[in-house]
Amino acid sequence: MTQAQQYAQENAARFRSELIDLLRIPSVSTDEDYAADCKKAAEWTVDHLKAIGLTAEVIPTGRHPLVYAEWLGAGSEAPTVLIYGHYDVQPAAKEDGWDTEPFDPVERDGKIWGRGTTDDKGQFFTHVKAVESLLETDGKLPVNVKFIIEGEEESGGESIAKYVHEHADRLAADVCIISDTSMAKKDQPVIVYALRGVTAFEVTVYGPKQDLHSGMYGGTVHNPAQALAEIISKLHNEDGSVAVPGFYDAVRVLSDDERAALEKVPYSEEEWKDDTGAPKPWGESDYSIQERIGARPTLEINGMASGYWGNGMKAIVPEKAWAKMSCRLVADQDPATVAKLCQDYIMEIAPDTVRVEVTPFKVGTPSPQTDIDTPMMQAAIAAYEKGWGAAPVFKREGGSLPIVGDFQKVLQVPVILMGFGLNTDGLHGPNEHIHIDMFHKGINTSIALLDEVAKL
Amino acid sequence: MTQAQQYAQENAARFRSELIDLLRIPSVSTDEDYAADCKKAAEWTVDHLKAIGLTAEVIPTGRHPLVYAEWLGAGSEAPTVLIYGHYDVQPAAKEDGWDTEPFDPVERDGKIWGRGTTDDKGQFFTHVKAVESLLETDGKLPVNVKFIIEGEEESGGESIAKYVHEHADRLAADVCIISDTSMAKKDQPVIVYALRGVTAFEVTVYGPKQDLHSGMYGGTVHNPAQALAEIISKLHNEDGSVAVPGFYDAVRVLSDDERAALEKVPYSEEEWKDDTGAPKPWGESDYSIQERIGARPTLEINGMASGYWGNGMKAIVPEKAWAKMSCRLVADQDPATVAKLCQDYIMEIAPDTVRVEVTPFKVGTPSPQTDIDTPMMQAAIAAYEKGWGAAPVFKREGGSLPIVGDFQKVLQVPVILMGFGLNTDGLHGPNEHIHIDMFHKGINTSIALLDEVAKL
Repeated sequence: MTQAQQYAQENAARFRSELIDLLRIPSVSTDEDYAADCKKAAEWTVDHLKAIGLTAEVIPTGRHPLVYAEWLGAGSEAPTVLIYGHYDVQPAAKEDGWDTEPFDPVERDGKIWGRGTTDDKGQFFTHVKAVESLLETDGKLPVNVKFIIEGEEESGGESIAKYVHEHADRLAADVCIISDTSMAKKDQPVIVYALRGVTAFEVTVYGPKQDLHSGMYGGTVHNPAQALAEIISKLHNEDGSVAVPGFYDAVRVLSDDERAALEKVPYSEEEWKDDTGAPKPWGESDYSIQERIGARPTLEINGMASGYWGNGMKAIVPEKAWAKMSCRLVADQDPATVAKLCQDYIMEIAPDTVRVEVTPFKVGTPSPQTDIDTPMMQAAIAAYEKGWGAAPVFKREGGSLPIVGDFQKVLQVPVILMGFGLNTDGLHGPNEHIHIDMFHKGINTSIALLDEVAKL
Repeated sequence: MTQAQQYAQENAARFRSELIDLLRIPSVSTDEDYAADCKKAAEWTVDHLKAIGLTAEVIPTGRHPLVYAEWLGAGSEAPTVLIYGHYDVQPAAKEDGWDTEPFDPVERDGKIWGRGTTDDKGQFFTHVKAVESLLETDGKLPVNVKFIIEGEEESGGESIAKYVHEHADRLAADVCIISDTSMAKKDQPVIVYALRGVTAFEVTVYGPKQDLHSGMYGGTVHNPAQALAEIISKLHNEDGSVAVPGFYDAVRVLSDDERAALEKVPYSEEEWKDDTGAPKPWGESDYSIQERIGARPTLEINGMASGYWGNGMKAIVPEKAWAKMSCRLVADQDPATVAKLCQDYIMEIAPDTVRVEVTPFKVGTPSPQTDIDTPMMQAAIAAYEKGWGAAPVFKREGGSLPIVGDFQKVLQVPVILMGFGLNTDGLHGPNEHIHIDMFHKGINTSIALLDEVAKL
């Protein structure tokens, strides 16, 4: 145990008490009624970071403020670690099924119960306490550290995206650490090293100028719902792959080592069935379920509509049909390029008996990936081994965290997602909690991480 | 000109005045506030039929009463003509764009303006006046005549359907005449000799147990919207025909004579484009537009829905997708049989990665057709020639009139649709009218028809 870890152990109760102070602030970012609380949480965080010895400031934005803090005393030759977190939380009310008041946290059964305990106040606070422990025991940090803590993660995250683009120099770092994901179980840490990006568009098929009487015109008009279905049916091949030409061109190939590493994350077909409730898996037969979710891009129908969908029947030929589609992307696919490929293909297969429009949405999240054989990743592995007492497994997440893409793209920094929570911690639901031992192991792991990065 | 036609000419002004009395009664069947007016219209009609020498009665039903009347003095050896009409009308209010009060009819510019003038009071009244003209001049009719006039044609027609099934003996006839359709133009009568039937069902594709996060599961779940689209895409062949095995088995073959007759009804691709607004015709390439509408069955998507179809995007894999489908049928397809064929085929092509349900609706309208070379049809042709002064063309309608199917199926009687109105008469819209000369030619044609049927 290092001196810093010793310090953390001795101050564990105070650390939790401080976290509970922060948890009491109902910094719900999705509801403007709580805007003042978001500001209060930002100010509390800045005050706290200043108190432990960092330079810190509240940065006003168009909505909820950002928190920026830094300690650059390790010198320009030393590596710089950027730590991201968010102080905003999901809405919560006792009547949603909580056993305790969501904003009046309690310690019980080895857990702290309250909104934000795991997502993400409890998780980012581990790094704050790691920094304090190192500063208090060594008088300095082994590396330079920057914190960027936002208040809109649960509600769009536009302010931080803007700030990253405008102040890339200030946030420059050698590695970015985020603790806002989940582990497989308490003794099995998980490093998420890749996320999927997103692009999305809408396809509209126009047929007749208005809904037609199916008796008077049925059989002579290409039914737009049918035409849309015919288009959709051509988007995938028999083997589950996407049929859009060029769709896979930019996909980074999955190495054998990576496939072996991914196989270590246990996820059986039975678990998949329990999770989804679907009869049996579908998708690219050459890839495992885990790989299909994390390492392969998709083209998904998110919704579609045409004509009459209420009760009973209505004998019409609908005037139009539309579908909302999105792609989950992987490194190194470019969202706009993939949207264009899809658009071109759909227009090419569109029959001339209807009029088809493809409208890309103004979203486009890239697909960040930090290769698992890089030195920074080795430091993260060692940190878990020394701080948590277990080697992590590697996982790709199928979802997107837009800010991760921004960090990687704008700051050109490898991003490592080191979660200290569990999927079962009630994030976004009632009775959110963090395991007290995991909170403290998180602090230990963060201390070890800063030490490990210093060795690089 | 026959004596009866002479009588009709001499009494033309009175006939119109009587029609206007009936038109003044706002017998709107779709609005229960007018239930008393529907009853009043039924009673007025019964009184009038009695006054001209028929046995007549108001028949109460669960909703709006039926009118039944008969004159059976021609004897059991003579043919019996059943005449159908409806006294109920669509709603109408001056503020909908009428130039006159819809229930205060006026004669102007050679037309009578008012709700129900063409649909259908003005049309069925021609037969009433034809019967009066024959009775007044000959003291008898050349054939037995039965009238069945309903009050729910615009609002479901359930009462008459029930009555037909329960009192088939009373309505027994050799031919059924209906004047409730349109001619091509004033000097071009049209006989509609076939209507399409209907069957309908709903297809639901169930995937996961709830909407899934497309990042967390996309690529492993068979998207129900996609699966539904794949099913729909297999319902038609490349040539526009329906791909369901056995779908066309019961279809009565279109003879060369019929195809030649149908070609006489002018309907260009340009007219079709104006009507539909669709880019170009679609459908069975071996059949003309007119034939596709009237003589060929269809399988139509009336509506479909899945997932999220509002503004913006929502990155989900929907839990289910559903489509409402209906078939327009032709003689001699059986609605239930066709629904079963579709259901079987869809279940056969349904992939095992989703769960598919096909639910037939409780509708099933058969497809009545009266062949154009039958003696009754020849009588109708002669009636137009002698009464209207022009030979009719033959047309199939693509829509359905359920009561026609009931007449043909339950009463086993050929049904001939002899319209005396025009599509441009404003039926269901504002400024509904009937051309005065067409009203009187209709009476003449009806007189000629009864004479012609007597010759058979």
